[in-house]
Amino acid sequence: MHGDTNHGRAMNTPLKFRPAARSPGENDLREISERFFSDLADLTGDGVGISRATFGDGETKAMNYVARLAEAEGLGCWRDPAANLVIELPGLDTEAPYIICGSHLDSVPQGGNYDGAAGVLAGLLALIRLRRAGIVPPRTVRVMALRGEESAWFGVCYLGSSALFGQLASDDMARPHRDTGKPLRHYMTEAGAAVDRIAAGDVLVDPKSVAAYLELHIEQGPVMMARGFPVAVVTGLRGNIRHQNVVCRGEAGHAGAVPRWLRKDAVLAAADLLSRYDEHWRALNERGMDLVLTAGIIATNPAEHAMSRIPGECGFSLEVRSQSIDTLETFYQLVRSEADAVGRERGVGFDFGLRSLTEPAVMDQRWVNHLLTICDRLGLGREALPSGAGHDAAVFANAGVPSAMIFVRNDHGSHNPEEAMDLDDFLKGADVLFNALLEPPL
Amino acid sequence: MHGDTNHGRAMNTPLKFRPAARSPGENDLREISERFFSDLADLTGDGVGISRATFGDGETKAMNYVARLAEAEGLGCWRDPAANLVIELPGLDTEAPYIICGSHLDSVPQGGNYDGAAGVLAGLLALIRLRRAGIVPPRTVRVMALRGEESAWFGVCYLGSSALFGQLASDDMARPHRDTGKPLRHYMTEAGAAVDRIAAGDVLVDPKSVAAYLELHIEQGPVMMARGFPVAVVTGLRGNIRHQNVVCRGEAGHAGAVPRWLRKDAVLAAADLLSRYDEHWRALNERGMDLVLTAGIIATNPAEHAMSRIPGECGFSLEVRSQSIDTLETFYQLVRSEADAVGRERGVGFDFGLRSLTEPAVMDQRWVNHLLTICDRLGLGREALPSGAGHDAAVFANAGVPSAMIFVRNDHGSHNPEEAMDLDDFLKGADVLFNALLEPPL
Repeated sequence: MHGDTNHGRAMNTPLKFRPAARSPGENDLREISERFFSDLADLTGDGVGISRATFGDGETKAMNYVARLAEAEGLGCWRDPAANLVIELPGLDTEAPYIICGSHLDSVPQGGNYDGAAGVLAGLLALIRLRRAGIVPPRTVRVMALRGEESAWFGVCYLGSSALFGQLASDDMARPHRDTGKPLRHYMTEAGAAVDRIAAGDVLVDPKSVAAYLELHIEQGPVMMARGFPVAVVTGLRGNIRHQNVVCRGEAGHAGAVPRWLRKDAVLAAADLLSRYDEHWRALNERGMDLVLTAGIIATNPAEHAMSRIPGECGFSLEVRSQSIDTLETFYQLVRSEADAVGRERGVGFDFGLRSLTEPAVMDQRWVNHLLTICDRLGLGREALPSGAGHDAAVFANAGVPSAMIFVRNDHGSHNPEEAMDLDDFLKGADVLFNALLEPPL
Repeated sequence: MHGDTNHGRAMNTPLKFRPAARSPGENDLREISERFFSDLADLTGDGVGISRATFGDGETKAMNYVARLAEAEGLGCWRDPAANLVIELPGLDTEAPYIICGSHLDSVPQGGNYDGAAGVLAGLLALIRLRRAGIVPPRTVRVMALRGEESAWFGVCYLGSSALFGQLASDDMARPHRDTGKPLRHYMTEAGAAVDRIAAGDVLVDPKSVAAYLELHIEQGPVMMARGFPVAVVTGLRGNIRHQNVVCRGEAGHAGAVPRWLRKDAVLAAADLLSRYDEHWRALNERGMDLVLTAGIIATNPAEHAMSRIPGECGFSLEVRSQSIDTLETFYQLVRSEADAVGRERGVGFDFGLRSLTEPAVMDQRWVNHLLTICDRLGLGREALPSGAGHDAAVFANAGVPSAMIFVRNDHGSHNPEEAMDLDDFLKGADVLFNALLEPPL
């Protein structure tokens, strides 16, 4: 915490001071945060981890808890037509485009307490600090708890943010809940969303009315733990190219009776191909290109495989992610040409099936620089990192809203009960967000 | 067919001529063979392929059919204590060790008509030719239809031949039938085997009483089709080293959020390792070493794998076969040392579990040369080939009986209804066997 610095900055900018109950110190913010995470865990624990179902009980309970907390601080609250929670602190210019500090409150089943909720709390803490200190920020700030960021419940993600921009397809609203089988639309209706408007593709928020979208989130990978960064600024969100099941087809045969020159072994062909991909990846990484490659699933066909049978078929999933669409497409050329080469050399064929592309999301350079400058000033260094995971920030960025993200160090990844964010790290990240609102680069 | 040559050879050797009904010509042998395979298919077809269950109905039906055919030719027949069928033609010296022409009559479920049965018929044809021509061979010849060569029914193979040498464990006799669950012992009892003697490990046949074991069999691989050999002589039967499931353990993680340097990807590690094995295999093959390598099964763990998750675990089966125990063990050293190297480089571990070793079976060099010489004389070339699959010949060879095998060209491999042996090729192979008996290298 750097309360003095904040006051100092507030003094140098055209901020209106209102009488405040008191300006919260570091200990107040820590207490609020501890209670927040403890209360949320009590409300939405499932015995193993945390379950806050998208458009379901857990998410709504957490949302109501956040709303009560905001109201107790004198902040205005409402649900928007997508049933997202909005908490507002009006700025000096209430007509100018506002800034959103967003994240989500849902979790995967048996997930952790921090993925999503940390970002909502960070936004709320910023509003509480501003309000208690009597600071009116230059622009109106809205904290948003966006519905349904996780795909675990209905198989599709970014529900609340996509709905705002008319991008939630009615097909998606028919998707069944993983446990009950009832459609998403049913749960959206129960939560109070304007399902007809959303299904019609109405744009509920004009992107031009939003000056910026900022999101604090725990890092879901191990980079910050490994490198010792408590806080980092996200440079971009990786897009991806995916194939659910690339099938290599060779020819089954007796494992002992067919010599090497007559074999069309699907497993050795797939291993060869994956090793070639891995080698290209290594080479591109060494040249500084942002790329990750994953074949998360591989399997021979259980209906016909055997230890003593040359495998005639082997399928694997393929996912390539990068912040750069050029890198994605360049690598993808290698993916296909190497498959052709292995196919020719080994007498097998690769059936890639449908390709799906999610474009990378570019973070706003002014905001990235602004956040890095604040980190530097707060003694946190200037650490920048790509986000390998997707976030609601990608939806806002691709809708044309200047967007940026702050990552907070977290151990054991996310989507599991072992998520471990240190409260000190969180408070540092929340401080960066607070400072960013005082003097937005607009 | 080279009937004239046979007579010529018989004249030059000390064979006793008995009055024969008639000496069979090529057309007779062809007719017997056509009828044999056609009748067997009628008796034991299952609608899809051929099912002659080990110690079950199909095998027994086929055995009874063969016995009737032999008896009709005036040949003596009996069941030995392991319930194998024995057909005998006494030789000039009935006290000297005899020659066995063996193979089996059982098949895998929905298998083909030739795997096994061709060898029994080839032996029977040789006896019929000798008997009809009034030739008494120098040594007694026994044709044996050995029980239970296929492991498909009880999970263990070479039942009839192993029982002869006291090598069928009582544990194995407790193994359940794949469909009924009843133990092998039950079926052996029903077939008339002396189960108590077999379970006690009694040696039912003294290996010293057997001068040689000869077996004609279809080739189960594609080499002879590819190279255009109708008949080949087997140089040896490959042994193998097997691991049912080598488990690579790395670390699961978010596919997008973990950079290359922090990954412990089990699939890319397994692909790397298999590619290294493949490369060593290629190099050893080019140096003329007999070796085949198969990873017939590979799979990530369905309980935790996902397209967007770094695979934390990947298991694969591993089988290496060679005619040379030295080659097997040399390659196996590479198998383990490369696994250690990949483990170190990629931060994963390989758990190999139990290793199983089946020693290669060496064919008798005098008999191999004898068979090659006969092939050459009959205009079939001198084609030698390793057997990648196992056969009863391995049991006899490893019991100390000089053994040799003749392969007949066959398309589409074996253990499936598509087995395709040309009758011309079969008759050529049977002719080699017949000639081999006239002047055995003893």
